Amino acid sequence: MTDAKQQAANQMWGGRFSTGVDAIMEAINASIDFDRRLARQDVEGSRAHAAMLAAQGIISDIDAEAIREGLLTVLSEIESGNFEFSKALEDIHMNVEARLKALIGEPAGRLHTARSRNDQVATDFKLWVRDQYDAAISGVEALQKALVGQAEAGADWVMPGFTHLQVAQPVTWGHHMLAYVEMLGRDASRLRDARARMNECPLGAAALAGTSFPIDRHMTAEALGFDRPAANSLDAVADRDFALEFLSCASICAMHLSRLAEELVIWSSAQFRFVTLSDAFSTGSSIMPQKKNPDAAELIRAKIGRIMGAMVGLFTVMKGLPLTYSKDMQEDKEQVFDAADSLMLALAAMTGMVTDMSANRAELEVAAASGFSTATDLADWLVRELGLPFRDAHHVTGSLVAMAEGQGCDLPELTLEQMKSVHEGITEGVFSVLGVQNSVASRKSYGGTSPKRVREQVALWQERLG
Amino acid sequence: MTDAKQQAANQMWGGRFSTGVDAIMEAINASIDFDRRLARQDVEGSRAHAAMLAAQGIISDIDAEAIREGLLTVLSEIESGNFEFSKALEDIHMNVEARLKALIGEPAGRLHTARSRNDQVATDFKLWVRDQYDAAISGVEALQKALVGQAEAGADWVMPGFTHLQVAQPVTWGHHMLAYVEMLGRDASRLRDARARMNECPLGAAALAGTSFPIDRHMTAEALGFDRPAANSLDAVADRDFALEFLSCASICAMHLSRLAEELVIWSSAQFRFVTLSDAFSTGSSIMPQKKNPDAAELIRAKIGRIMGAMVGLFTVMKGLPLTYSKDMQEDKEQVFDAADSLMLALAAMTGMVTDMSANRAELEVAAASGFSTATDLADWLVRELGLPFRDAHHVTGSLVAMAEGQGCDLPELTLEQMKSVHEGITEGVFSVLGVQNSVASRKSYGGTSPKRVREQVALWQERLG
Amino acid sequence: MTDAKQQAANQMWGGRFSTGVDAIMEAINASIDFDRRLARQDVEGSRAHAAMLAAQGIISDIDAEAIREGLLTVLSEIESGNFEFSKALEDIHMNVEARLKALIGEPAGRLHTARSRNDQVATDFKLWVRDQYDAAISGVEALQKALVGQAEAGADWVMPGFTHLQVAQPVTWGHHMLAYVEMLGRDASRLRDARARMNECPLGAAALAGTSFPIDRHMTAEALGFDRPAANSLDAVADRDFALEFLSCASICAMHLSRLAEELVIWSSAQFRFVTLSDAFSTGSSIMPQKKNPDAAELIRAKIGRIMGAMVGLFTVMKGLPLTYSKDMQEDKEQVFDAADSLMLALAAMTGMVTDMSANRAELEVAAASGFSTATDLADWLVRELGLPFRDAHHVTGSLVAMAEGQGCDLPELTLEQMKSVHEGITEGVFSVLGVQNSVASRKSYGGTSPKRVREQVALWQERLG
Amino acid sequence: MTDAKQQAANQMWGGRFSTGVDAIMEAINASIDFDRRLARQDVEGSRAHAAMLAAQGIISDIDAEAIREGLLTVLSEIESGNFEFSKALEDIHMNVEARLKALIGEPAGRLHTARSRNDQVATDFKLWVRDQYDAAISGVEALQKALVGQAEAGADWVMPGFTHLQVAQPVTWGHHMLAYVEMLGRDASRLRDARARMNECPLGAAALAGTSFPIDRHMTAEALGFDRPAANSLDAVADRDFALEFLSCASICAMHLSRLAEELVIWSSAQFRFVTLSDAFSTGSSIMPQKKNPDAAELIRAKIGRIMGAMVGLFTVMKGLPLTYSKDMQEDKEQVFDAADSLMLALAAMTGMVTDMSANRAELEVAAASGFSTATDLADWLVRELGLPFRDAHHVTGSLVAMAEGQGCDLPELTLEQMKSVHEGITEGVFSVLGVQNSVASRKSYGGTSPKRVREQVALWQERLG
Repeated sequence: MTDAKQQAANQMWGGRFSTGVDAIMEAINASIDFDRRLARQDVEGSRAHAAMLAAQGIISDIDAEAIREGLLTVLSEIESGNFEFSKALEDIHMNVEARLKALIGEPAGRLHTARSRNDQVATDFKLWVRDQYDAAISGVEALQKALVGQAEAGADWVMPGFTHLQVAQPVTWGHHMLAYVEMLGRDASRLRDARARMNECPLGAAALAGTSFPIDRHMTAEALGFDRPAANSLDAVADRDFALEFLSCASICAMHLSRLAEELVIWSSAQFRFVTLSDAFSTGSSIMPQKKNPDAAELIRAKIGRIMGAMVGLFTVMKGLPLTYSKDMQEDKEQVFDAADSLMLALAAMTGMVTDMSANRAELEVAAASGFSTATDLADWLVRELGLPFRDAHHVTGSLVAMAEGQGCDLPELTLEQMKSVHEGITEGVFSVLGVQNSVASRKSYGGTSPKRVREQVALWQERLG
Repeated sequence: MTDAKQQAANQMWGGRFSTGVDAIMEAINASIDFDRRLARQDVEGSRAHAAMLAAQGIISDIDAEAIREGLLTVLSEIESGNFEFSKALEDIHMNVEARLKALIGEPAGRLHTARSRNDQVATDFKLWVRDQYDAAISGVEALQKALVGQAEAGADWVMPGFTHLQVAQPVTWGHHMLAYVEMLGRDASRLRDARARMNECPLGAAALAGTSFPIDRHMTAEALGFDRPAANSLDAVADRDFALEFLSCASICAMHLSRLAEELVIWSSAQFRFVTLSDAFSTGSSIMPQKKNPDAAELIRAKIGRIMGAMVGLFTVMKGLPLTYSKDMQEDKEQVFDAADSLMLALAAMTGMVTDMSANRAELEVAAASGFSTATDLADWLVRELGLPFRDAHHVTGSLVAMAEGQGCDLPELTLEQMKSVHEGITEGVFSVLGVQNSVASRKSYGGTSPKRVREQVALWQERLG
Repeated sequence: MTDAKQQAANQMWGGRFSTGVDAIMEAINASIDFDRRLARQDVEGSRAHAAMLAAQGIISDIDAEAIREGLLTVLSEIESGNFEFSKALEDIHMNVEARLKALIGEPAGRLHTARSRNDQVATDFKLWVRDQYDAAISGVEALQKALVGQAEAGADWVMPGFTHLQVAQPVTWGHHMLAYVEMLGRDASRLRDARARMNECPLGAAALAGTSFPIDRHMTAEALGFDRPAANSLDAVADRDFALEFLSCASICAMHLSRLAEELVIWSSAQFRFVTLSDAFSTGSSIMPQKKNPDAAELIRAKIGRIMGAMVGLFTVMKGLPLTYSKDMQEDKEQVFDAADSLMLALAAMTGMVTDMSANRAELEVAAASGFSTATDLADWLVRELGLPFRDAHHVTGSLVAMAEGQGCDLPELTLEQMKSVHEGITEGVFSVLGVQNSVASRKSYGGTSPKRVREQVALWQERLG
Repeated sequence: MTDAKQQAANQMWGGRFSTGVDAIMEAINASIDFDRRLARQDVEGSRAHAAMLAAQGIISDIDAEAIREGLLTVLSEIESGNFEFSKALEDIHMNVEARLKALIGEPAGRLHTARSRNDQVATDFKLWVRDQYDAAISGVEALQKALVGQAEAGADWVMPGFTHLQVAQPVTWGHHMLAYVEMLGRDASRLRDARARMNECPLGAAALAGTSFPIDRHMTAEALGFDRPAANSLDAVADRDFALEFLSCASICAMHLSRLAEELVIWSSAQFRFVTLSDAFSTGSSIMPQKKNPDAAELIRAKIGRIMGAMVGLFTVMKGLPLTYSKDMQEDKEQVFDAADSLMLALAAMTGMVTDMSANRAELEVAAASGFSTATDLADWLVRELGLPFRDAHHVTGSLVAMAEGQGCDLPELTLEQMKSVHEGITEGVFSVLGVQNSVASRKSYGGTSPKRVREQVALWQERLG
């Protein structure tokens, strides 16, 4: 270690250490390479703290003003790229404070009164994560709007509804789009709940026990947009629930995105041709000039991996840690930074793809009519018109499907006689329910796929999303 | 496959299959070994469905009554252990329905009108998971009460507050207990939010598209205690968010428990002796007769493993599934069953341990005074009384600690002269802040460790927890 | 706790406890509900231990004989279902020993000499897991054989090779099947390496420190089929690597299965129709009689969830455990049991599906020719015949594809003039490389898709798999 | 998109795209920000490929030479920091090739003959991961040496052996250190097996199907240090087992490190004082000047989180991907880069800590004698000398421990009369086994804790580790 670094280290830890840290220790211990992303939050937190210290008479107004102005200077240096970060100073807090001292001298040393890095970093990180909650909510809503747009356009376009990737029943394009709007609606709701829960301010918990200085924690909490100060100082510095819950919300959202992405990949295959993705979200091949690959969809599908990986990582870190702060918890940031970036990017890319994509209506309707997709309509007709118990109607329909399959034709192509050979009560009327347009129009139960219901839900979501 | 099984299979799937399933398929496909836990929910759901079908005139009142009574009989057979489950009938739904048919004949075949196993299983499972939310909230609150009890008793017992498992500052036993009450408070809040979010009824979504029968989904939703029917039928059968969110809430809660469990294990070591666990939650050794092992604490500490494992498992299952229902989703239940059981057991065992455990006050107070734990008080005194900037006070204190350490004594044992040799402004008054009782009493900032603050929080929580 | 249970508990732990355990403790602590699966291993381990104790003169031959015979009786009682397991006796070890005592009296008490439950359970569990390694290797090889069978039959069937689920180049069915044979070959290799690594015997490590009795650990190791005794007693009782490595091998194998399963699901969709799965591994729908769902494939695809979940669970349990044995480690068994069962079932079901499935050759060949799949062949022709740098050839080919796409035709349908308009050097000869049969036949590089290469690999694998 | 970027994009994908990619797409799609770490591997792979193309007469020797020289220039530009990476060129492969073209012109366009980015990236990444296997083996061995050094010094230092963090039996410091040497020995063995398994060369698989050019894959495989070419081209481009297995090996190793780190944290607490960590691997506190925190140990303990998180992430990405290459797989690199960096750093830091740490022999020996740690010795004495069955001896010992505990004394402090009151056969001789030195010396079974056995193992490991 150079003398300068030794000195910097000594300065920071007081006179405690004789030998200092070597390169490995610096590499494993220093967080400045990643926690510099907290610069704005660190400055905001310190400015609020200084204002409160002055208001409570703990430091002078003059010192507070010098500190607050100095911090703005530091921040502008950082944001303009004119700040030299020092690894020997370990983290963003010490980098900012050291620079503040260089700028304003002695008063800088008064800033850390009634505070510790433990509550400081918890506050900084909470502020950062809170912004991610907000950004994620916005990103989710933008995607919802894109999906509602697709749903409105295609409220009555018929497509196959799948279970087990087998054609089950005809549904509408709009209905399918709205299924994702619902999922994303839960995502937004979940993010909002979590944001409300985490909005308590750790600042003033000091190292872990609170402080004997007459601080006003409600004042700093309010200044930083928190609903209240955290009620227990030990918990305040030991808690990373807000990060875990963000990762959990993000993982569920990423899971939803992975499902839509999977559908887009399958739908844009040569065999399905259900959608055409825009060139903007596709790429080519270095060896196969004809390829148009749904790269963005695939990458979005993959994002759940690293987001869930980050969640597992942080859970594992937190498992079994005694109170209060342990250095293990420094591993919280990179995981959350990466997961948040991944989520925002995936949401933005998906919003772009959904906005740009074109449904291939003709292909969708042909596919919807294939695979005996109105067999359930037929069974329901048997129940409704002939009074068969559903299980019997199901059996009769099964036999008719087998007959059609054996003859290589579809259900509407069977003759009335053929149908009667399976169940003699069947009448001409049955043919009216075997068309896909009639099928979807008939499913008017609440939440059902009929265009009427879809348009109601579209209107509802348009209102909700503003 | 035996003829009987073949027949059972044929009966269930209509006339579609010619060869049936073999033993491996039955082993991988049948869910009755585990989904029988949904029997009560299945019967409740079917009873509500039948009542609605009759109210809407889709089946007759007489049939509905026969179905509803028959289902009660089936349930009582199951609950009394007099029900023979059949693996060939695959799942709880078919087992119940087949038995219903044996009991009441033809009307049983009308129950499945306007319904599918897709919405049926989603409803059953949601009802089951909803109960787990409620049970988890109760379990969390019971543990909170036990902790508040400890906090009340020990509001002014002094113990070491740790960071990095190093003695940092003295805190109070009550304050430490309340830190966990806060964590658990967030758990309960999280569980409540999630329960409210998931309380939408899938029933009536049918296979995936809704139905052409004039059903009343609001009626069944209300009968089953749901706030409303799910608004999109595709989403209703494809959604497992409610299970994932439960697993996520459970994982965070289990993480909190793992931290407390770790502390109990460490605290009951011969080296710490901070607590004595009751014999009821300890065990002996087959080879070392003197051992008294904190087995329950260790097992609780481990539970986060299987709970988080279940969460990872279900996320992985759901990743990339196209809409709507895929059989993969059958893997949801065992994961959630096991995680829920594990969480409830861990909460109950921890509640018992916390209720029974005795803090060793003498050991705690001695430990609190060791390790220069009031160094921060000294630094704060230098700031407050001598007007030193905090960073300078920190440096002075570091030198005093180094001096004391060098002499093998504690801070209060330094003489005033020795202290003055480091900073000449120090006066006799400094010794008043070096005692642990004074130290904790002085930390009166909101959320701080002083007995006064602890008692306020105890009162608050007692009121909240009723 | 009943007196009987109290007595049982006292008996087991010696005279240490005064109050005993209550119901919750029993529920969280007792492992007999799951570790009874180790009965055979427990008896084998104890029989080997007793024989060694006698050979070393630590117990008498008569006692050893009584113990060894008695243990066989206990095992036969358990295997025939005539054994009453007691939860108060906690685990399989105490259940077996207590029954042994009832059968043979006092000598039973000598069995546990120079042994502890710590080395006993490690030995039992290792024996069980070792069997799973063997079973997994067999299961993997059975699936490889089924795949090689498909590869042999379809060595020259042409199908589309996909990247990004877009048709890239024609390949052969046999080549595609062999890709999975390679993956599974690595699985088998991985399992064999891990099995060799774990084959060290913990027995004789006693509680953690070894023993002062003159035992012969090499004798018991050999009797139980281990390569050698574990070299460090602390490690022997603290180690669960063998379980983690099994879960890791199983997860990678399950990942491979999930990929094949995904392909089968996609291939059996109405849009692809690449394969027909046998009825034996498909199921129907309760509401849609026409459905034939690839349930087994979907369930196999899902198994990676619970297997990886189990791995994450056990890693999380082991994280941060100090040496040596901690009760947390009791959470190892259920995770591994479930994962092993899941893997074996998935392998068996996949083997059945692969054996039974029929490739739809006609559909495959048509699909292989679509999507400009021989564009690379064209580009390679330009390089080979006209001497273009590959990048230029790539560009020319891209223009030709765009031209064909614009005209709604395929590459071979372009006229020579049209081609020349893009690059005038193109000659009639180019059309010879645009057919899919020629395309696959030409890819004769080592590891390539040509039928010739596929048949060589088939022969190689047939020899390897015996 | 700027014209220049559009042009760059067009250049790369041929003439296929009309609209190009926008900023979001670039952000999600481009990998150059991270895959630039593969520069050296990319150049090596391309140089080997070019040499082979020339040797096989596919390109001219002159072109090959220009390519090979040009690539060295590119690499030196990159390694000296004088290379301008372009995001529009997406990845390291296109960046290198574009620069090569600028340097040498037309021949650069011939390099990609008989190759695709699919086999190129698989080769590059395998080469990188292979280096990590080697680095991890070295790192593991360095740590083993440090531990063996500690074991040699303290082969006969007595310390408490723990189970459940309760003192169980006395063991030796050397024995404890060697337990970790064994764990790490399995890590090294696992890494070696995996490295051997993965050492097959994908190059020449081309896009997925192999190539019609007469390439020599054995030549490139050998040039790049691979044992052989991969046998199936589809598998070669679709396989990421080598990365998953690395992450799995790394996770198990990180788990071992987390256990040792946990012990170091506990051992350096004021309550244990078993070890003193060097200042170099400790840090101070910003508010508590007296603190000396085991930061490095805590950070090492946490690393399993991100390493296992990376593993879960990549498993999740790979789950359910159809063959062959999907863009999802681009998510492999950052996970592995981060996990590899974390593992190497953790190994290095732990090696430093272990080398530097001092065991506090006096504290260890006192602790070893506490807690009735020789109760097992007493029980064994009863078996050996008095012929009691072990279970009876266990019961007698339990009563003696209870007696001593009741009197607040340790076992050796009981009088012979008191002992006889529990079992009258006890003689003076018993006291010889109650001392901790005798206890450890007596445990001479293979793998046991006696200094003699420890020294044998130390010698063995010194020989193995060279």
